[in-house]
Amino acid sequence: MRSLTEHLWFETDKKIDFVNITNTVDNLVRKSQVKEGLCLVNAMHITASVFINDNEPGLLSDFEKWLEKFAPHEPVSQYNHNVGEDNADAHLKRTIMGREVVVAITNGKLDFGPWEQIFYGEFDGRRRKRVLVKIIGE
Amino acid sequence: MRSLTEHLWFETDKKIDFVNITNTVDNLVRKSQVKEGLCLVNAMHITASVFINDNEPGLLSDFEKWLEKFAPHEPVSQYNHNVGEDNADAHLKRTIMGREVVVAITNGKLDFGPWEQIFYGEFDGRRRKRVLVKIIGE
Amino acid sequence: MRSLTEHLWFETDKKIDFVNITNTVDNLVRKSQVKEGLCLVNAMHITASVFINDNEPGLLSDFEKWLEKFAPHEPVSQYNHNVGEDNADAHLKRTIMGREVVVAITNGKLDFGPWEQIFYGEFDGRRRKRVLVKIIGE
Repeated sequence: MRSLTEHLWFETDKKIDFVNITNTVDNLVRKSQVKEGLCLVNAMHITASVFINDNEPGLLSDFEKWLEKFAPHEPVSQYNHNVGEDNADAHLKRTIMGREVVVAITNGKLDFGPWEQIFYGEFDGRRRKRVLVKIIGE
Repeated sequence: MRSLTEHLWFETDKKIDFVNITNTVDNLVRKSQVKEGLCLVNAMHITASVFINDNEPGLLSDFEKWLEKFAPHEPVSQYNHNVGEDNADAHLKRTIMGREVVVAITNGKLDFGPWEQIFYGEFDGRRRKRVLVKIIGE
Repeated sequence: MRSLTEHLWFETDKKIDFVNITNTVDNLVRKSQVKEGLCLVNAMHITASVFINDNEPGLLSDFEKWLEKFAPHEPVSQYNHNVGEDNADAHLKRTIMGREVVVAITNGKLDFGPWEQIFYGEFDGRRRKRVLVKIIGE
């Protein structure tokens, strides 16, 4: 069995942001030399997500608006978590978008449908955070 | 390490539909001859889901009504994604239901609780779409 | 390849409850002797979740309030599933929180960010239920 472990670092300028990390993950799959296996990509912070969807700016803005509706930042006092913090909404937003994705590796490549792209979703940005890429297989 | 890769094809008559694929996946686990391992089942399209829940028609209709409430199709103009498309809501619905499931394989079978069933969830149907089944283990 | 399969049992006093299972899973990783691999932790019941978030009581109470807003228990008659049952909302709540997590194992330990903790989320408690821990790797 082969395995590879890498951390990706992010520090977004905006509080909420989406970063396409598909090429980075694809390069790590190649580096791992795994031909058949699984690739786990997960946020290591609980106010951030890794998810798969379409690389279309309109849709990404729809996600942001939609998440704000279901887990609004304001008023911060509506959340019990917000004692000395103001990021409870970011924990909820990340819950909707998900912590992780598991992607198949087939013939040494991410086995993806035509529009699948991996995104890092940041909901409490402007600080350094990590994503873990773990690849196992043969 | 053994592995198996299969694609399942779907073309639902309805825009929104749920298809129980448990038996199909179970047969693929047997075909793989993996006794201990993991089985990834994921939608390869970003307006569809794979999820695990109860095979109960009332519940499936509850899911449909509930998703429509939180990510309504109409008015299509409420979404920035809907320029020449009208399926932004399907991207959001799939996000709530999830892209993938990872199921344990134990003694050559899906290691399931009493009511767990795997469903393909379609939110923008009437076109051909795929699900990936990837099995690894020994 | 090494593998380990264990079931954790729960019977919560409350209908809705969150139980931190991080230490239990960590001990199973050590028991498995897997140094590099993946650890799947999933609810085996469809009205319960396994998720990763912050071990902060205020946040856990925010989750409970938030889930009740988006998938209210009452009136039970609003759900088609509730014929002879009253737990449709628990199926929806678990869908938002997720069925499973997949965690990387690196150097024989759960490869976690600083605040990541694994929780069992119960949405229809006061009965015996199980969580599956499946570890594979080398």
